[in-house]
Amino acid sequence: MTPLPNLRIDGARLWGELMETATIGATRKGGICRLTLTDLDRQVRDWFKARAEGLGCTVTVDSMGAMFARRPGRADIPPIAMGSHLDTQPTGGKFDGVLGVLAALEALRTLVEAGYETHAPIEVINWTNEEGARFQPSMVSSGVFAGAFEHDWASARSDPAGVTFAEALEAIGYRGWQRCGDHPLSAFFELHIEQGPILEAEDKTIGIVTGIQGIRWFEATVRGQDAHTGATPMNLRKNALLGAARLVERVDAIARRHAPHAVGTVGRMEVKPNSPNVVPGEVFFTVDLRHPDASTLDDMQEAWIAAAYAVTDEGGLEVEINKILDQPPVRFDADCIACVREGARTAGFLAREITSGAGHDAGYVSRVAPSAMIFVPCRDSISHNEVEYAAPEHCAAGAQVLLQAVLRYDRLLQERAATRRD
Amino acid sequence: MTPLPNLRIDGARLWGELMETATIGATRKGGICRLTLTDLDRQVRDWFKARAEGLGCTVTVDSMGAMFARRPGRADIPPIAMGSHLDTQPTGGKFDGVLGVLAALEALRTLVEAGYETHAPIEVINWTNEEGARFQPSMVSSGVFAGAFEHDWASARSDPAGVTFAEALEAIGYRGWQRCGDHPLSAFFELHIEQGPILEAEDKTIGIVTGIQGIRWFEATVRGQDAHTGATPMNLRKNALLGAARLVERVDAIARRHAPHAVGTVGRMEVKPNSPNVVPGEVFFTVDLRHPDASTLDDMQEAWIAAAYAVTDEGGLEVEINKILDQPPVRFDADCIACVREGARTAGFLAREITSGAGHDAGYVSRVAPSAMIFVPCRDSISHNEVEYAAPEHCAAGAQVLLQAVLRYDRLLQERAATRRD
Repeated sequence: MTPLPNLRIDGARLWGELMETATIGATRKGGICRLTLTDLDRQVRDWFKARAEGLGCTVTVDSMGAMFARRPGRADIPPIAMGSHLDTQPTGGKFDGVLGVLAALEALRTLVEAGYETHAPIEVINWTNEEGARFQPSMVSSGVFAGAFEHDWASARSDPAGVTFAEALEAIGYRGWQRCGDHPLSAFFELHIEQGPILEAEDKTIGIVTGIQGIRWFEATVRGQDAHTGATPMNLRKNALLGAARLVERVDAIARRHAPHAVGTVGRMEVKPNSPNVVPGEVFFTVDLRHPDASTLDDMQEAWIAAAYAVTDEGGLEVEINKILDQPPVRFDADCIACVREGARTAGFLAREITSGAGHDAGYVSRVAPSAMIFVPCRDSISHNEVEYAAPEHCAAGAQVLLQAVLRYDRLLQERAATRRD
Repeated sequence: MTPLPNLRIDGARLWGELMETATIGATRKGGICRLTLTDLDRQVRDWFKARAEGLGCTVTVDSMGAMFARRPGRADIPPIAMGSHLDTQPTGGKFDGVLGVLAALEALRTLVEAGYETHAPIEVINWTNEEGARFQPSMVSSGVFAGAFEHDWASARSDPAGVTFAEALEAIGYRGWQRCGDHPLSAFFELHIEQGPILEAEDKTIGIVTGIQGIRWFEATVRGQDAHTGATPMNLRKNALLGAARLVERVDAIARRHAPHAVGTVGRMEVKPNSPNVVPGEVFFTVDLRHPDASTLDDMQEAWIAAAYAVTDEGGLEVEINKILDQPPVRFDADCIACVREGARTAGFLAREITSGAGHDAGYVSRVAPSAMIFVPCRDSISHNEVEYAAPEHCAAGAQVLLQAVLRYDRLLQERAATRRD
């Protein structure tokens, strides 16, 4: 077969579209507030649809509002898809999600302008409600797509004002005819900002994402006895905050014992009655444990629960623990990962393998189609924040690697088809 | 001189009045919500005034709303006063403060009914806004009375609705003509529930309160860096909650190192942004240190501040500390304490010396008049709570000791006057 063409995406054009769409829901501090299925979301969806159709794509929408902009290939097989999400957090940035959709659009436009015919159809996908800021859980449309959530359950989720997902979808005119999930893919590639400090710290441009950490979330309530801070001697106290504080330390220590890949965090804590002169009688907190390996995650969970009972027993306290989330680790497809690695090498970028600490649509999609992800650095690892920033050259690098990876995977499918014919 | 008369207060009558006034602001859970200078406070003040006048007392009110019900003595000298406060916390109990006023009223009534003439005038005092729940700071009228606060500053304090102390006082008709503080006292005795576990744990009926612990309050803010819990490796974190948790432990340890009288507590904590999947970037908390001895309190303060810098330095964090309260320890008057001790002995109750962990009006009053306090047990050391409870026999015992102490102090004044005349 012929070598892959040397197609180059246009970084300036990509940056221009990132800035253009950032005006839809722009905040005064330079971020975006574009909650899923609001009128602002409709505006950016309309923009995306018009651009894709302008490139000759057919845009279909599924029953969860996910959008699929397709450019045909020579073969009548499921498409190779690229994409991410266009919704943001309430005080979100300009890159989280958006970069993955607009870079995919730029990659597709590069193919169109070069007149390059692919073997497989190529699609750009905009997943609905990745952020989970308006409707919980997050990543709900890719979750339904992959069979992780029931369609009707997800449609009936409601926002704080009592509006259901289905009603909001209807209201903005993006409830599609295609049943969510009835849309096979040959592969899926997602470009995203890292949201962590590793690439920046090591001065790497591309993260070859090999998987997503397993995540377990717990809610814990430690109960002791409210008491007057002045009138209650130390030896007669049942201080719930003292127990909780020790557990903050233990969770941190457990993660460090499973270095370098483990993380463990108490992110939220509520103290009752939360008064300067009352020994706290009750403390609620969350525990977030993550690791790429399920058996290590089992060990971490066991250690944390054992610590919770040991620490509270010692302090004359009670503890109640609920596991509220258990997402198994994701290992991306070896062929897809190899295509990303080759893409980065061909384009000449410094790259390293990396495990995603955050969840992404690609995590769910990987259950039903070969998938992988590409990370680019974001400044100071800040995301979900209006000051979130990814440099233009990094956005362009990510889009270039995305295009190369898709072309390489397309060639792989073509070669396999040829082998079968032989 | 003749021996002291064997006067007995009526415990059942005292209990009846405790229950009767508890209906003014009664809560469904059996407590009282009677915030200072509200119409409910007016009602209980009217009740108190009527009862005192019914016993032949003259009731005067000062410019901070403190009420003084006086029964004349043989000598024209400042009165020996007893009392406490009739305001409560929003979810307060039936005994905190109220017991001290109603037991004083019962003691005075016992004198009236016996026709017993004292040397000094006897007064029952109701101090305004001891609780500090509606207007901060607490103990404001006894504080102005003793010169701890400026009169005009205190009058201008406003509640959450923007109503000033002076306006609220005017509205309920309890702004008196006498300038607060222009009211000399020969002595002051305050009966109160312990609000701690010591008497109950040791099965003692009477606490002979020798002083009030010194109190220092600090506000601390630990600052690190918000970060994604999944994407931020442990070694690249600046976890403000981890630093704060270590300081919760250090404060506890510092108090235990200064056993048995020291106490140290983190009672309030606010975590930012307080989300399960964000490493906390900022934590605010309060530190409450108490000890009866000022030099030990100095040592504790030094240890806590050193710990704050050491722990945050180690964690790559910043810390800002403000001291927001510094109440020096109070040592009550030796003669007053002796009168309480003798009163408990004469009445035949098991008693022990005790240091108050909480602040009380008597603490301020002791700056301008010889003072002491009497504690009685409260169940499970619960106060500032609707289930707060003191047994009828303990309330009666406290009132009896209060009466005995006042009679004994009165005899002391009489003897001193006689000595001067000789």
